[in-house]
Parts: sequence; C-alpha cells; structure tokens
Amino acid sequence: MIITEEDRKNCSVRLSEDERSVVILDQTLLPNRQVWLELKTLEDICKAIKSLAVRGAPAIGICAAYAMYTLARQADAGDPAAFAAAMEKNAETLIAARPTAVNLSWAVRRMMKIAETAPDAGIPRVLGLLRHEAVAVHDEDIRMCYRISEYGLSLVKPGDGILTHCNAGPLATSKYGTALGPVFLAKERGISLRVFADETRPLLQGARLTSYELHQAGVDVTLICDNMASLVMKNSWVQACFVGCDRIAANGDFANKIGTSGVAVLAKYYGIPFYTLGPSSTVDMACPTGADIPIEQRDPDEIRTMWYREPMAPADVKCYNPAFDVTDHSLLTAIVTDRGIVYPPFDVNLKKLFA
Amino acid sequence: MIITEEDRKNCSVRLSEDERSVVILDQTLLPNRQVWLELKTLEDICKAIKSLAVRGAPAIGICAAYAMYTLARQADAGDPAAFAAAMEKNAETLIAARPTAVNLSWAVRRMMKIAETAPDAGIPRVLGLLRHEAVAVHDEDIRMCYRISEYGLSLVKPGDGILTHCNAGPLATSKYGTALGPVFLAKERGISLRVFADETRPLLQGARLTSYELHQAGVDVTLICDNMASLVMKNSWVQACFVGCDRIAANGDFANKIGTSGVAVLAKYYGIPFYTLGPSSTVDMACPTGADIPIEQRDPDEIRTMWYREPMAPADVKCYNPAFDVTDHSLLTAIVTDRGIVYPPFDVNLKKLFA
Repeated sequence: MIITEEDRKNCSVRLSEDERSVVILDQTLLPNRQVWLELKTLEDICKAIKSLAVRGAPAIGICAAYAMYTLARQADAGDPAAFAAAMEKNAETLIAARPTAVNLSWAVRRMMKIAETAPDAGIPRVLGLLRHEAVAVHDEDIRMCYRISEYGLSLVKPGDGILTHCNAGPLATSKYGTALGPVFLAKERGISLRVFADETRPLLQGARLTSYELHQAGVDVTLICDNMASLVMKNSWVQACFVGCDRIAANGDFANKIGTSGVAVLAKYYGIPFYTLGPSSTVDMACPTGADIPIEQRDPDEIRTMWYREPMAPADVKCYNPAFDVTDHSLLTAIVTDRGIVYPPFDVNLKKLFA
Repeated sequence: MIITEEDRKNCSVRLSEDERSVVILDQTLLPNRQVWLELKTLEDICKAIKSLAVRGAPAIGICAAYAMYTLARQADAGDPAAFAAAMEKNAETLIAARPTAVNLSWAVRRMMKIAETAPDAGIPRVLGLLRHEAVAVHDEDIRMCYRISEYGLSLVKPGDGILTHCNAGPLATSKYGTALGPVFLAKERGISLRVFADETRPLLQGARLTSYELHQAGVDVTLICDNMASLVMKNSWVQACFVGCDRIAANGDFANKIGTSGVAVLAKYYGIPFYTLGPSSTVDMACPTGADIPIEQRDPDEIRTMWYREPMAPADVKCYNPAFDVTDHSLLTAIVTDRGIVYPPFDVNLKKLFA
C-alpha cells in the first residue's frame, strides 16, 4: 500500500505545511464546530492531550510523534548537548500529560531514541531522522488500520447493516479506523454498507464522533440510543456488529467501552455475528482472562448531569459509572487484527497469531 | 385494605383542601425543583396534561376525575340543564388534551355518566356523587397498585437487587406504583431491597423520576446508564427485573418503554427472572401477539440534542427513535397483575385470568 502526502494531510492529526506545528481537529467541539488547532508549543500540545482535543490511542501517539519533531526544530540552537537535554524535558512533560496512555509514551520513547543520538550524529541529521520517524509512526498506523479494514470487509457483503458502539474510526486513529475501518474502506471502493451507531452514554462518543465522521463521509448512518439496539437487531437490520477493543486477554475476553458486552449478548440472542477489531498490539498475552482486566470507575456526574450543564437526577443519588466492561470470549465470533482474523478457540489461535 | 385521607393526600395528584382545585406535583421540573401546581380552571388542567406536568396513565385518570368534580362545582349556577351542558363541554375539552391516553377518556366518561343525571337528580346530589366517584377512581388505583405490589413482593427476598427500566412508580400512578410497587411496599414493611434504575434514554425517566422518587423514599437506589445493565447483571447484583407495561398481547408479548426487550434478553442470558407488572386492564385479549402492537416513532431531536438545548450529533443525521419495543413472551418469567401472577403458557393462563 502506497501512502501519499495527501493521505497524511487528510488525517485529523497532521504536520503543518511549514512543519512548525502539529495540526489537529479539536474533538471536544465536534460535532457542532470544526475547529483546527495549530499546536506550536509544548504547552499547546499538552493542553490538547489533557483536554481530549485529541483522543484515541493511535491518534495520541501520532500527535506525540509529530510534536517531538516540531519541538526538536524549536530546540535547535546549535548545541547538541543542550538539544538532547531540551528533548529529554519535552519527553517527560509530554508523557506526564496523560500517564495511562500507552501509545503516548511509546511514541515519545521511540522519538527519544533518535533525539539522544544528537551529540554524536549532529542536530541537522537528527532532525531529518526525527521527521522520518514521526511520519513512520503515522504511516504504520494507516497501514495497520488498512489491514484491519481489509480483513473486516471480507466478513460482510454489500448492503449489510453494521452496528457499532462508541468510536473507533479515523478520528481516533489516522485513516480508516479500526471498528469503522471496513466501513470507510467500503465507501472508498463504492461498496455500500449501512451503519447503526449506538450513541454510547454517558459521554456520547457515538453521537458526537461516530455519527459525525460517517455522516461527513457520506456513509448511510442511523444514530440510535444504546437501548434501541435490541429492536434494531430484531428488525433484521443488522448483519454484523463491529466494535473496537482496549485490551484483549489471552483467552479472547476483551475490554471495551461500557455497553459492549450488552451488545454482544443481544447479537448472540438474535444470531448476529459479533466482531472486535483492533491492532494485534491490543492483545495482552500476559493477561489470562477478562477477570484480570481492571475496570476504571468514573465521575457519577457524567450520568447525573447533562454534559455537566444541568442536573437530570437528584444531585446526591448514587451512580455506578464504569468506563469499560469485559465481553466474554464465548460471545465473540472472531477477533479482527492487522495480522489476520482469529477464530475460536481463541486461547489456541491467539498463541498461533504471535508464534 | 383501608385507604385514609392521609393516603390520598400523600399522592402526587390529589384534591385541594378546599376542594376547588386539583393539586399536582409538576413532573416536568423534577428532579431539580418540587413545585406543586394548583389547577383551578379547565385551561390549567388541560395545560398540565398536555405539557406532561402530570404523566402516567393512572395518574392522568385520577387527575381527570378530580378535575371533573372541581369543574362541576364551578359549573353549578343552579340550572341543571346548563350544568349538564357545561360538563359536556368540559369532558370534550379534557379528552382532547391527550387523545391517545385511554385512562383519561375512561375516567372522564365515568364522571360524565353521573354528571348527566343532574336534570333528574339535582345538582347538589350530583356534586356529592361526583366527589364520591373521583375518590373511587383514586382509591381503586391505590388498591390495584397495592395488590400488584403484594404479588410482586412475594417474588423477591430481603436484600435482593431489582433492576428497573423507565418509570412505573407512585408518580405515574397513585401510591406504590406498578413495577416499583413491590419496592415501595417493601420499604413500608421495613424489608430492604436494592434498586438499579436504568436512566432510560432519550427522555431519562429513570434518572429524572425513578431515581428521584426512590431516593426521596429512602430506598437504596443506584442510577446507571442503560448500557451498564449487562455489567450490573454480570456482577450478580440483580436478582429480579421489574418493568411496567403499556399493552400485553394475548400470547404474553408486551409493549413497554424502548429498551425493555434488551433488558429481557440480558436477564435471560444471565439467568435472572424477568417480570412485567401492570393492571389486568393492560392485557388486550383482542391483540393476538406483539407483532400486532404498533410502535410510535418520535422526534429525532430527542436523540440528536441534549434535552433540546444543545446539539450532540450532526443536526441532519438520521435517527431511529421508537418510543416502545415489544418483548417476546419467551423472555418473560411471569406477568404480575392485580388479579394474580400469570406464568407460562401465557396464552392459556391469560385466558384463565379473565375466565
């Protein structure tokens, strides 16, 4: 697959024309306003990551890689030792912006390995290598999403209805996305698919991001409340469920946005294939089962108030607000990765994937 | 069961002390503000019904019955024929306020049968009979809810967790409620139950009304988003699901708030008993199966915007917004009515209920 400058420029995270800033589409303002931010300083970048103006593990990684390159250009005052020290500080500050984001520290460390060679290699050469590495981080993600999309697309046929939950599209990655990848690839190839997007309470990523990016791309998308998935499936409008994944255990259990396990139970009941799509790096072979995946609990006010603006429940009523749930592997038809499609028995076949 | 004036006064729809108005708790302002409205004129009453300040089929019926009595007192100018004519006009206007509300026209017609006797019986006697009839409508609902609550309570044990969807509590009825009846009766008897309330998108009746009225009553209630029910069940926190019903077909299929069928599928998967609770008048023996129940489609902006205040999805994105879904009788453990608990086979046993 050949990736062009045009492909990179169409992404919601990219390098500016003058290569002095990272340009991102501010995801906090979607879908009401499309505002592109030019992130010039370390402070700008950290603020964008902290405020979730850029979100989605792969998108954060790409943003961090480009940031390390543009900040390197600013740090170039001719002294290689001072340059390396400045980059060390940039790296530390960036990683601290969202400490749990694995892709962030992974991308920053990858860039630092090159920045550290400045005292030997010289700054001009290192700047070239940093640019090359940042573009590589970006391109690798596009390729990975493309491969996932190809495998995913092989599982459906023209005219099929796809139900998805939360957001795992281009906004969260580079191009195509993971769970939405097959849909965007189908669009590119003139194959029509119909998507039902769960709004995904409490933070409404499905309404704000998934329905937005599919609608923008001209895909036939219908937004529904999470509790309408059962009726949509009963109506025979859905031929496959495609969801993302945050972590896949060695037995095929996987964690994803809260509500995913409910969609999987419904799909099983209505006889609809249910797939999770993600990079093979999401598989954690050191994690035996879903029971070993910790579930983050979030602020009850995400449920009690409408977007923190207006109370919609008694101010002191108890809430349970888990960010994720774990879907049992017995509910899963297959795992779609950049390395191929993994079918049950997952414990055996995931091992084979990495053999 | 003895019903006292105190019982009636504790209801969110009641007669004022001076018997010149109907007093209601404005449900549109809950849970943020508890505002009691004194509805004096025909215009006040119609406005309250149209704006959903009073909602829930039984509550609307009680409100209409009391309204017919207080309006009769105003219509009393000594001329029985003019009185009957004025009451006819009141009845027509009231019924038109929400034409699809069966309980509204049922209660109004019941009161009109008495009002029409004024030319023969005389106004003073008719006013007394109207008061008696309105109180009877109210008391019958309290008794019906009480019987449903008794039957429902027999299905759970102290300490059990109950999951409910939408709102079928005292606010929608008189006292106790239907689906929430067993919980309020348990509270009265010092039996502790734990409730998980689905927020119930898009209109959030679970957050605004169910969590409010349970919290007010000191019941242990936890509010969750609809998509969290799967994880709550997986955690073994739920021993029974109690939901209301809008219409029950002769084979046991039933229509209720959108999302109910999804809860039923989850309950089946996790091995949790699933009950619908409602008056026996909800059973429509003329309706063979759920396929014969029409599903109302509502305004897409209920999903696209946050409470009509702020866009949360592209303004022109397609939405599917059904108000109800039909739960298949095969997912139902039993139907709890004021006449008793109906178990499968529902087609046979529902017939027996009315034999």
